[in-house]
Amino acid sequence: MNDHVSSINEYLLFCKRITQLSKALWKTIEKDWQQWIKPFDLNINEHHILWISYHLKGASISDVAKFGVMHVSTAFNFSKKLEERGLLEFSKKENDKRNTYIQLTDKGKDIFEQSLKAFNPENSSIMHGTMPLHDLYGKFPDLIELTTMIRNIYGTDFMSIIDNVSIDNNDEKHDAIEQK
Amino acid sequence: MNDHVSSINEYLLFCKRITQLSKALWKTIEKDWQQWIKPFDLNINEHHILWISYHLKGASISDVAKFGVMHVSTAFNFSKKLEERGLLEFSKKENDKRNTYIQLTDKGKDIFEQSLKAFNPENSSIMHGTMPLHDLYGKFPDLIELTTMIRNIYGTDFMSIIDNVSIDNNDEKHDAIEQK
Repeated sequence: MNDHVSSINEYLLFCKRITQLSKALWKTIEKDWQQWIKPFDLNINEHHILWISYHLKGASISDVAKFGVMHVSTAFNFSKKLEERGLLEFSKKENDKRNTYIQLTDKGKDIFEQSLKAFNPENSSIMHGTMPLHDLYGKFPDLIELTTMIRNIYGTDFMSIIDNVSIDNNDEKHDAIEQK
Repeated sequence: MNDHVSSINEYLLFCKRITQLSKALWKTIEKDWQQWIKPFDLNINEHHILWISYHLKGASISDVAKFGVMHVSTAFNFSKKLEERGLLEFSKKENDKRNTYIQLTDKGKDIFEQSLKAFNPENSSIMHGTMPLHDLYGKFPDLIELTTMIRNIYGTDFMSIIDNVSIDNNDEKHDAIEQK
């Protein structure tokens, strides 16, 4: 076997490994998420949009698409449905007429906070899968290799929403992100 | 903030982090995969079924569903389409009449091997995102924390297809898996 073939094999083996791990992880998270938000009559795209809007006050549709890893049309269409239910409002900014911005209404904020309160780690397969590491490390795993891969692909900006924004909706941190 | 609230916050922060990482990873892999197999007129479920059947000779539909992380009905319906295209065959085993088994035809094996040959790491965003780690470590990252989480959720059996089966279709290793 020459070096070229050996190297393609190495790529393919890693490709297979990361594909299996990624699909298994995402399917588990998707299922957990659907179960979690079932009582709120929201699908996961809608809940994700509420989540991002809750953190990035006055997020543009393109911010939602970027941080939510969804097509702009998906972000727009589900935002429209949330607007029709009175959970968020569309607006334009004086200094930026091109982009559409969304902002949670009080009702939207309320339903999102209710969903956070309803989160029960006991019902989450991901939490069950992670607790042995948590117990061993004394904290949740950093997943530093995976995080590095995602940073390389999506950029530092994308990581800011993962790493810096607490669920307490800390204004200073949002401002820092918005200024970028 | 009392201990209970602090702990729920910790769960939610990790939940947000792993959700963002997982969605970003899977969407990238999905896109890479679709691009890769476009010339073969296969969708990713169909290619995944060929992949699993190629490794686990005589896989049952429930094996395909399990290792492919898909519903049994999805595994069955796409296998049916592959059968109609002459890429695999259905069969029953003498000693196990309940399960339906699938096996690649020569045409199916050929198209799958062609797809492996067409794999070009240059076109893969995941490979671009991983190469800085590969260059630093001198090998692809082990993603040991992620692997541990998936093993905890899906079981050791699921991991066998990730860890033991080489793309060279090594008979001894398959036999070991089949005997489990």
